[in-house]
Amino acid sequence: MPEEKHNSLGHHYIVEASGCDPKVISDVSQVQQILVKAAELAGAKVRAVSFHAFPPTGVSGVVVISESHISTHTWPEYGYGALDFYTCGEQVDAEKGFFYAVEAFGASSSQITEITRGIDEGDQIYFHSFVTWEEEFKG
Amino acid sequence: MPEEKHNSLGHHYIVEASGCDPKVISDVSQVQQILVKAAELAGAKVRAVSFHAFPPTGVSGVVVISESHISTHTWPEYGYGALDFYTCGEQVDAEKGFFYAVEAFGASSSQITEITRGIDEGDQIYFHSFVTWEEEFKG
Repeated sequence: MPEEKHNSLGHHYIVEASGCDPKVISDVSQVQQILVKAAELAGAKVRAVSFHAFPPTGVSGVVVISESHISTHTWPEYGYGALDFYTCGEQVDAEKGFFYAVEAFGASSSQITEITRGIDEGDQIYFHSFVTWEEEFKG
Repeated sequence: MPEEKHNSLGHHYIVEASGCDPKVISDVSQVQQILVKAAELAGAKVRAVSFHAFPPTGVSGVVVISESHISTHTWPEYGYGALDFYTCGEQVDAEKGFFYAVEAFGASSSQITEITRGIDEGDQIYFHSFVTWEEEFKG
């Protein structure tokens, strides 16, 4: 039987970005560039990208990175962008990536929840836990 | 000024599936089929898929659906699969999709958190909220 342990198998950051620049977050090409650069700044290896426009003016996209993913869904009409940074392993600095993305979106503030995924106390029954905080950005 | 309201812009289900069948969740083709069928059962329109194997035996994949996404990252050596179902709009029955996927993975139990994304109380400062529960499945 395994000894007691508190391992985890991923860190997943759930980010609501408010006050974003509608010109930036309505542009599929710019949003894709921002997410790919965020992945690179975080030290993640990009494996695939899929971005598209959705009505009326939003952008939806996923960057598949090794073992995990980064995604965004934007509503320019509300100045709102939803971001997810899901990373595995110790090599990736997710916070560096999503702070870049949120600032590149021109956000004035964001709420962030870090979810620790796949926590195992030794019985192979997996669960997750949360920490939530808020950030303000200079306009 | 907008009147007070509590709109939201998405429902995001974070699922930890334990006791999964290692044969199923180590097979890229099967995992992709399960996620695509889960999207279809949920009533979502599939726009793109990206699945790959990662060492030593895991599968990582994303199904891009209209306005949102479904993803999984599996660790067959632990019988563990992480699932995300992020949906927007009222047309998609995400629970129908992820319950299908979790049972197709052969899971014995799961922890599920529903995150309501992009909640606006009328000031265009967006936040999210959580509800967490657990499910047991027959082996």
